[in-house]
Amino acid sequence: MEDRILLAHGDGGLLTHQLISELFLKYFRDETLKSLGDSAILPSLGEQLAFTTDSFVVQPPFFPGGDIGKLSICGTVNDLAVSGARPLYLSAGFILEEGLLLGDLEKLVASMAQTAQEAGVRLVAGDTKVVERGHGDKIFVTTSGVGQLVGRGLGTGQIRPGDLVLLNGPIGDHGMAVLSQRHGLEFEAQIRSDCAPLNGLTVPLLSRFATLRFMRDPTRGGLATTIKEIATASGRDILLLEKEIPVRQEVRWAAELLGLDPLYLANEGKVVIIVAPEEAAEVLNFLRGHPLGGMAAIIGRVLESGEEGIINIDRRREGRPHSPRGGQVYLETPLGARRLLDLLAGEQMPRIC
Amino acid sequence: MEDRILLAHGDGGLLTHQLISELFLKYFRDETLKSLGDSAILPSLGEQLAFTTDSFVVQPPFFPGGDIGKLSICGTVNDLAVSGARPLYLSAGFILEEGLLLGDLEKLVASMAQTAQEAGVRLVAGDTKVVERGHGDKIFVTTSGVGQLVGRGLGTGQIRPGDLVLLNGPIGDHGMAVLSQRHGLEFEAQIRSDCAPLNGLTVPLLSRFATLRFMRDPTRGGLATTIKEIATASGRDILLLEKEIPVRQEVRWAAELLGLDPLYLANEGKVVIIVAPEEAAEVLNFLRGHPLGGMAAIIGRVLESGEEGIINIDRRREGRPHSPRGGQVYLETPLGARRLLDLLAGEQMPRIC
Repeated sequence: MEDRILLAHGDGGLLTHQLISELFLKYFRDETLKSLGDSAILPSLGEQLAFTTDSFVVQPPFFPGGDIGKLSICGTVNDLAVSGARPLYLSAGFILEEGLLLGDLEKLVASMAQTAQEAGVRLVAGDTKVVERGHGDKIFVTTSGVGQLVGRGLGTGQIRPGDLVLLNGPIGDHGMAVLSQRHGLEFEAQIRSDCAPLNGLTVPLLSRFATLRFMRDPTRGGLATTIKEIATASGRDILLLEKEIPVRQEVRWAAELLGLDPLYLANEGKVVIIVAPEEAAEVLNFLRGHPLGGMAAIIGRVLESGEEGIINIDRRREGRPHSPRGGQVYLETPLGARRLLDLLAGEQMPRIC
Repeated sequence: MEDRILLAHGDGGLLTHQLISELFLKYFRDETLKSLGDSAILPSLGEQLAFTTDSFVVQPPFFPGGDIGKLSICGTVNDLAVSGARPLYLSAGFILEEGLLLGDLEKLVASMAQTAQEAGVRLVAGDTKVVERGHGDKIFVTTSGVGQLVGRGLGTGQIRPGDLVLLNGPIGDHGMAVLSQRHGLEFEAQIRSDCAPLNGLTVPLLSRFATLRFMRDPTRGGLATTIKEIATASGRDILLLEKEIPVRQEVRWAAELLGLDPLYLANEGKVVIIVAPEEAAEVLNFLRGHPLGGMAAIIGRVLESGEEGIINIDRRREGRPHSPRGGQVYLETPLGARRLLDLLAGEQMPRIC
């Protein structure tokens, strides 16, 4: 086998078959995958299914704490996990650029296989295409996943006023790790991506806590965008307490240096959990006892209808009429002032996942 | 909205949300998709599942008879269909290049939506990423699909000596249409891709014919590669009759002109069907009565163990020892000579799907 990806690795012929049998199947040892059928044939799932997809284009493909392979498994596992499902089966579609080092591909595939094993999911289907040099960027991976719903299902429709908003740990690690690596920035303490499969944390949550309302992983767009999405979808106003939101000191410093807001930095091992107030303390305890939740915190609250997110502001002067349907996110600063948070707009931090 | 894709369309913020709500959801009107959850939540499927994925990088994205959007739906629908499943749910991951015309994206998305509707499948999950200009190639699409197995399932393990090999129509249309478009070749009769969803053809086959053994769509690598894969996986020798393999005259001429073999050209609306001899005539009749099978033919036969694929050849001189396990493909030319067919090797025709 050549030491770089050639166009012929993508033509469906001999080199494609060699790549599959000598590299992919060396690490992805699933019996269903090995049969190389047009589809993976899987047993019937008695419960409702969760089905999701995510494309990964992160640049650079290797970064502190992870790589595009690990990320591509975690991202899809986490989308299933936060949807209230037990992730079971994954597929991977590779778009490789001519000239990619086979050694790099092998490292990424090994990383995917190891992460899939850690997450307890099976990679059962795949596809590989090759594009000419200069028409891709080393490697893009699109993973899709199928999971089985655990319990009754979650949804923004279940969110009630008074519910509390929890987070399993500090924000911004992934985004800052990738940005630092891309721009060759070095900080005293190395910032590592938080990239991790969350199903080990979320599946037990689903069975233990009856008032779990909703979960979402704050990836692209960061925590602020995710909370805004939840507020919009539920029609509820949400108040976040800035001083409760965990941010590592080194991430805070790096973000300040670069003029970035950690609230909008991507995370790949974090989950926002909305739960009724009566179970919130127990959920927090559970999170703090879990390897992925040591720095968990209650970071906010769903406001009562009519409860004022911002007091003493002339709304007309602010130019943003208060929606009677709700859907606003307020951030209370450590000094007690409140400001509106919105979706990420205009800042360009692409290729982060 | 700008008239071109910007990096900010991929940052997960405001422009990403606009792109989703104003373009994708305009065409993909599925209720589950509209809920924009982290996963699509789907009803339990009582039967075994089929699950598959395929990345599409075809260049150019628009070609006679189709486009990358239509192709991305057909390709995954067909992988499910030939696996013996009823295709039900699709996901789509888009990797867009900065600068892509929004008008082109809209055409492709409309084409996907229309093809999905024709195929009777629901697009329930999606993702969009944007890469910098020069790091992608306008648009790559990765679709994944979930289907429900119909009947007892198919497999190369069911193939028996004496089984017949059928094909639903002429080969090479897709590969030649894309190549012609890419290189600006004009032929007297325009060659159009055969790109079509095959489930309308395969699902009835599955319930009607008890001796259906195996199906596969001869895409990348063409008919020859697909038959070789079937021979290898089943451990059976297969004989193809060249004069029975339908090829349109214009494709034959164009291929001759370009020095290409139609046997290795990609197809996107063809299926190889292996069935017991006693049902072959009935299957052929059924195919010929179907809009996607008017030119169907019996093109070959699975050889008996010990039956000689090639007679009067000194195997040692040929340098390719006869495997006692079988797995060879023989092509009988119109003059009665037989030659071995192998996987596509070395010819470079990438970006065809």
